[in-house]
Amino acid sequence: MKKVGIIAYGITPFTKEDQKIETVLLKSAKNLFENNSHINRNDIDAVLVSTNNNSKYLSPVLSEMIGVQPKIAHSIESLCNSGTNSIVSAYSYIASGLADMVLISGAERYDSPGQILEWDNSRGEYKHPIFWASIFTKSYKREFSISDEDLAIVPVKNHKQAKENPNAMSDKIFSIHDVINSKKLTDDIRLLDCSRPCTGSASIILASEESASKNTDEPVWITGIGQKTMSAGFTKSISLSSMESTKLAGYTALKMANRTIGDIDVAEIHDAFSVCEPMALESLGFSNFGKGINIIKELHETNNFKINPRGGLIGSGHPLGATGIAQTIEITQQIQSKAKNRQVDNVNVGLVHNMSAAATSSTVLVLEK
Amino acid sequence: MKKVGIIAYGITPFTKEDQKIETVLLKSAKNLFENNSHINRNDIDAVLVSTNNNSKYLSPVLSEMIGVQPKIAHSIESLCNSGTNSIVSAYSYIASGLADMVLISGAERYDSPGQILEWDNSRGEYKHPIFWASIFTKSYKREFSISDEDLAIVPVKNHKQAKENPNAMSDKIFSIHDVINSKKLTDDIRLLDCSRPCTGSASIILASEESASKNTDEPVWITGIGQKTMSAGFTKSISLSSMESTKLAGYTALKMANRTIGDIDVAEIHDAFSVCEPMALESLGFSNFGKGINIIKELHETNNFKINPRGGLIGSGHPLGATGIAQTIEITQQIQSKAKNRQVDNVNVGLVHNMSAAATSSTVLVLEK
Repeated sequence: MKKVGIIAYGITPFTKEDQKIETVLLKSAKNLFENNSHINRNDIDAVLVSTNNNSKYLSPVLSEMIGVQPKIAHSIESLCNSGTNSIVSAYSYIASGLADMVLISGAERYDSPGQILEWDNSRGEYKHPIFWASIFTKSYKREFSISDEDLAIVPVKNHKQAKENPNAMSDKIFSIHDVINSKKLTDDIRLLDCSRPCTGSASIILASEESASKNTDEPVWITGIGQKTMSAGFTKSISLSSMESTKLAGYTALKMANRTIGDIDVAEIHDAFSVCEPMALESLGFSNFGKGINIIKELHETNNFKINPRGGLIGSGHPLGATGIAQTIEITQQIQSKAKNRQVDNVNVGLVHNMSAAATSSTVLVLEK
Repeated sequence: MKKVGIIAYGITPFTKEDQKIETVLLKSAKNLFENNSHINRNDIDAVLVSTNNNSKYLSPVLSEMIGVQPKIAHSIESLCNSGTNSIVSAYSYIASGLADMVLISGAERYDSPGQILEWDNSRGEYKHPIFWASIFTKSYKREFSISDEDLAIVPVKNHKQAKENPNAMSDKIFSIHDVINSKKLTDDIRLLDCSRPCTGSASIILASEESASKNTDEPVWITGIGQKTMSAGFTKSISLSSMESTKLAGYTALKMANRTIGDIDVAEIHDAFSVCEPMALESLGFSNFGKGINIIKELHETNNFKINPRGGLIGSGHPLGATGIAQTIEITQQIQSKAKNRQVDNVNVGLVHNMSAAATSSTVLVLEK
């Protein structure tokens, strides 16, 4: 398969601002070109927009705003992992030879329609995703004898790390006590256990090996890709104490990259809720089942930013269509040693984990120097 | 590049029925599997949904309903050419090696939000696409001295051909007189000049050469692909008497297939409105500029179904996300000599032309035995 690399990126702060989706989308693309003025816009032959927004034809709209006339242009939606679905699609256009340089821009507004799953009638009156998170949390705690205090380490660590991310929505430090005493939303979920919807966007450019070498001295290569969809509703085909789609996607991505989980120096994990971080770490093989919290505690105590250096979804905010792209940018910066106060030591290989709707589907990417 | 072939298809009647998008989507996928029960659903490793519908996560929903657990699953939107955008994306997954067999299902409801371009404020009070069609028609008539009666041959021919298509919305024959005397919507557009929104869906499966040969004796190969996006709003970068994006997409597709326009035995042309059929024929090179109507008249007089055998968008109806897939199915059936009363003689090479929003973007595919 042809080599495909990340050659440029741009991002916006994640906020609660009320802005048109077109405005939000444009901001990260402009940020990308401001930081990479050497890139010739005529070389961009595909523009993919990742969003849950209901506006149509956003890719041609963005293309026109930034002065690009691409061959391929459309929007991609898969709830919370729209971003990595778009990255994998861009990869396939380049690897197949149909495109040479692809701009992927993800954006969302704080009131994204992707947060309300009106189609899942099995949720009864609960429409917000805290429903599945609450059931996951109850089940995980029971199966592995984990306490609310144990899980609270996830938001404590991720808000601390977000403090070092200038684009994160959170700029506060919280204690275990703060998490436990934050508003109780269900028996098992508190306000600080949740990532928060927000307005924001993130853009990257992927290129073929030849175009990458023309445009940057420090490309980051996508060496592993894994994706899996188990179902649409979490009441079917889903374990309540592990993430099957994450397991399969992780296995496929590592195999393609010819790597093992021990090779991963830094990882972005889809911590939509506190419980998701240990569950995903376990399903990816970072630890045995039920032991993910131990890793998180140790990293927190040693101030090691290896997992979710930018603060995860809980610390950064979660603009659905932009999240997978923002995760990929973070790992790219880590590999390029450009993550400033968030920098993890000696990063050669990084991993992105992005999922949707109770881990009914997952994407895992492996990135390398 | 690896060979990619069409190995199965399914379709629904195009109607005005009020059905849930999930129901509509499922119908053509079920029709596909009913007609191809030998296909092992476990072999399908990607499911792409083409639609303008606002419902989210439709690909995992469809996958669950049909019993498939794909790797890749998401929705694709690009207004009226969402269908061919999805086909090209599927092609790239297979050609890159990331997938081996891809199901593409397109569906729309009669009240699709893709018909209202709320973002194009340059349209003033006109939100329905008749605005651009009216300006195109006025300009085309003036530049090439074409009359309303000349253009009326398009709906007359296409409704006639739709009579032979059991899935078409239209089952009436109209005369030039009927078209001219149908309700006047603008100075230059009458009701019978318009394709009509409808409820319907269409599904196809694309496969690698190896999987195609295992699953069918009569694969149809996608040998040429061309796509181009000029802009988002038709007030910019757009000629009013030709279709620039169609010209460029057609050129690229024929070049990739190593064909000339003279090799094309049958074509599906995106006749959203009467004027679009001659304009597209000219931009694709079937005739000189201003002479497209002559071809259409001659084909109609000799009862030759070469252009838009299934009745085009005007005769079949236009369920946005399904249209490009339905067009591709028609050309597949023509190449397989399975088009019954619509069959064109000696078909070896066919072409699909699918566009969006005043031809601001176009896709052209070349299909062959």
